[in-house]
Amino acid sequence: MQFNEMSDQELVLMYEKLKREYENIKQQDLKLDMSRGKPAADQLDLSMDMLKQVIGVYDCKAENGFDCRNYGILEGVNECKRLFSEMLEVPVENIILGGTSSLALMFDYITQCMLTGSGAEPWSKQGKIKFICNVPGYDRHFSICEYYGIEMISVPLTEEGPDMDIIEELIKDESVKGMFCVPKYSNPTGITYSDSVVRRLARMEPAAKDFRVIWDNAYAVHDITNTPDTLLNIFDECKKYGTEDYFVEFTSTAKISFPGGGISCIAASDNNKKMILDRLSKQTICYDKLNQLRHARFFRDLEGIKLHMKKHAALIAPKFDIVIEAFNAELKEYDLASWTEPNGGYFISLDTKHCSAKRVGELCRSLGVVLTDVGATYPYGVDPDDRNIRIAPSFPTVVELKKAAEILCLCIKLASIENLV
Amino acid sequence: MQFNEMSDQELVLMYEKLKREYENIKQQDLKLDMSRGKPAADQLDLSMDMLKQVIGVYDCKAENGFDCRNYGILEGVNECKRLFSEMLEVPVENIILGGTSSLALMFDYITQCMLTGSGAEPWSKQGKIKFICNVPGYDRHFSICEYYGIEMISVPLTEEGPDMDIIEELIKDESVKGMFCVPKYSNPTGITYSDSVVRRLARMEPAAKDFRVIWDNAYAVHDITNTPDTLLNIFDECKKYGTEDYFVEFTSTAKISFPGGGISCIAASDNNKKMILDRLSKQTICYDKLNQLRHARFFRDLEGIKLHMKKHAALIAPKFDIVIEAFNAELKEYDLASWTEPNGGYFISLDTKHCSAKRVGELCRSLGVVLTDVGATYPYGVDPDDRNIRIAPSFPTVVELKKAAEILCLCIKLASIENLV
Repeated sequence: MQFNEMSDQELVLMYEKLKREYENIKQQDLKLDMSRGKPAADQLDLSMDMLKQVIGVYDCKAENGFDCRNYGILEGVNECKRLFSEMLEVPVENIILGGTSSLALMFDYITQCMLTGSGAEPWSKQGKIKFICNVPGYDRHFSICEYYGIEMISVPLTEEGPDMDIIEELIKDESVKGMFCVPKYSNPTGITYSDSVVRRLARMEPAAKDFRVIWDNAYAVHDITNTPDTLLNIFDECKKYGTEDYFVEFTSTAKISFPGGGISCIAASDNNKKMILDRLSKQTICYDKLNQLRHARFFRDLEGIKLHMKKHAALIAPKFDIVIEAFNAELKEYDLASWTEPNGGYFISLDTKHCSAKRVGELCRSLGVVLTDVGATYPYGVDPDDRNIRIAPSFPTVVELKKAAEILCLCIKLASIENLV
Repeated sequence: MQFNEMSDQELVLMYEKLKREYENIKQQDLKLDMSRGKPAADQLDLSMDMLKQVIGVYDCKAENGFDCRNYGILEGVNECKRLFSEMLEVPVENIILGGTSSLALMFDYITQCMLTGSGAEPWSKQGKIKFICNVPGYDRHFSICEYYGIEMISVPLTEEGPDMDIIEELIKDESVKGMFCVPKYSNPTGITYSDSVVRRLARMEPAAKDFRVIWDNAYAVHDITNTPDTLLNIFDECKKYGTEDYFVEFTSTAKISFPGGGISCIAASDNNKKMILDRLSKQTICYDKLNQLRHARFFRDLEGIKLHMKKHAALIAPKFDIVIEAFNAELKEYDLASWTEPNGGYFISLDTKHCSAKRVGELCRSLGVVLTDVGATYPYGVDPDDRNIRIAPSFPTVVELKKAAEILCLCIKLASIENLV
């Protein structure tokens, strides 16, 4: 029976029973973290052999003979660029490798647009400017906009991708300068943009000719089921309309090799690459080429990455199942929430139906279960409906996760009854 | 006899002899690079054991138990911060570690000052701003100013450091926002700021309260003789005047471990650190902690670094000697140039006396010897006297270097006679 079909008396009885469970768990002084999309240690173990790839003097030479211990090769060594080229289906010539963090590459790119522009006046000299943020979305994207005072306009993310009718209206405004997209296994809903959405994006005609889409393809190869999503290659579509300059693609091996020691990457049109390199040549002499060699040798090619990602999937998929099974068992009957069941990525997105998500977050925290800050999936940390919860099941162990999922369900029930009675 | 005391006939005879040497060398089709301060391969070999420090699962834990393969620890792991803290004599609390490049940390810091300010209005919103550049100086510093349209004011670098009389006048102008300093073994002259200069810098009273000195302590431990220079700790001096916020210090292990795979570092006052971290927390999740561990374990402490730097010195010092001996043998008698004989760092700075430095650069290039672009040691690439040549003796082998120094001397002679006759 659904909660909203129960009498107050039935609900109060249930509340008392749940509250006893709550008190019981509280005694256990748990510490369970489902807040961030961190790989678990067993996933990191998969890449350990990488660290042995560059330990001798002769290991330090790139295939072109360059000694990678020394200064030089700003764009990255060729064998590692090739790896990303295969992964993103973008020519090697359009690839630039970075340090460990693709977030840093995005931040630096937006900084560049602010200070020296993306082919027109610097954004910071154009008065109030705006960015389209698909919601729910990734909090670290929103933080960049907030830091620079870029006004964020929320656009709902459907199961097909961003609502293109709204976007096509918004970009008629010249002060709308860009948009954040996580096109595959979106953070946090896990959806992948449909072919039709990608095509509509590629043929956008923004009023701002210096419009830029941050195409954060963080989960390009992060499938967890046998029915993976596929994403159209944005640059292939753009070529049909001459819109390649509107898109800059980013990815990294953070969740392929090591979050704290991977390789990040930009894929950009000829024009954009030139502008980025112009800045980069002032910013640094080179990134860590030894780490690029480690990655190139360990993965070899796209097949190597795919094989490796299957091992990740074998460890992560059961964790997604645990959470979804708990939701099915505990929440479905009562119709207390809806949630996503993604084919890849790092998150499950849950929307409560009868209670405040913030309240659920509080209750969970009081039992030692840390969720992503409720609200963080929306610009300025404010979920207007106060219903979205991002669940990151990767980091806890299977045993911890079972407990955490059980507690989350309990807290949703408690919060819902509090609200209904 | 000095060239300017010789008759035209004597000079012409000498020119013909030198020209035959020139033609002879030209046949040899040489390729010798003294352009950049790159360590040679044998120096890089000294750090190879570092790459074996982190290859097993248990090697990946920091001393506080944190798994460094994963996200987290934005400021850097403690054991590696401690290493830099000892090296710079700055409390661990005031240290932030970066990626491989200290240039990137400087670029990003100036970018931050431009876009969000250093405690006042963003520099980019204050109209025309200016930076003091000590000359001759480091071309990559100048490039950052040029990229952002910051006007550069040249101030001569004496043997004691920058000319403080001029600087104290210049900083009365509120549009003068900062200064680049390489206080120890300055690039390219190799001088170290005297105690008196450091003290005068520390008690500067710039009109601009958001004034910032980029204290690029790139060669803090890079001694090459048994009579190393010593540099006063800028922050200790600043404390006496409450001026710590005017200075931000940078360094890296680029020329201690690997130029393409070292660790960079910021040392900053509490206020500045807070501002930098505020930006950094939006820019990235963390830098490469595995590489931080490698460095912390390989060097252990300051003593370890000092021992290691002695090995570098043993390889580099003979190269400095070769160049200086060639100058003494070939140029002194004729009084064709003056040059520095530094106790550390990576460069010898030479000033021609009777000819255009640019012409010397051309002649060298025509014989296959590449020098740093003549002029690059001055803002906008223009040496007003056209006399300064930066020589980087570290990268060629001893045999190559002998040849290169000989050729450089030959070209100075040729250019001088061309000019005198």
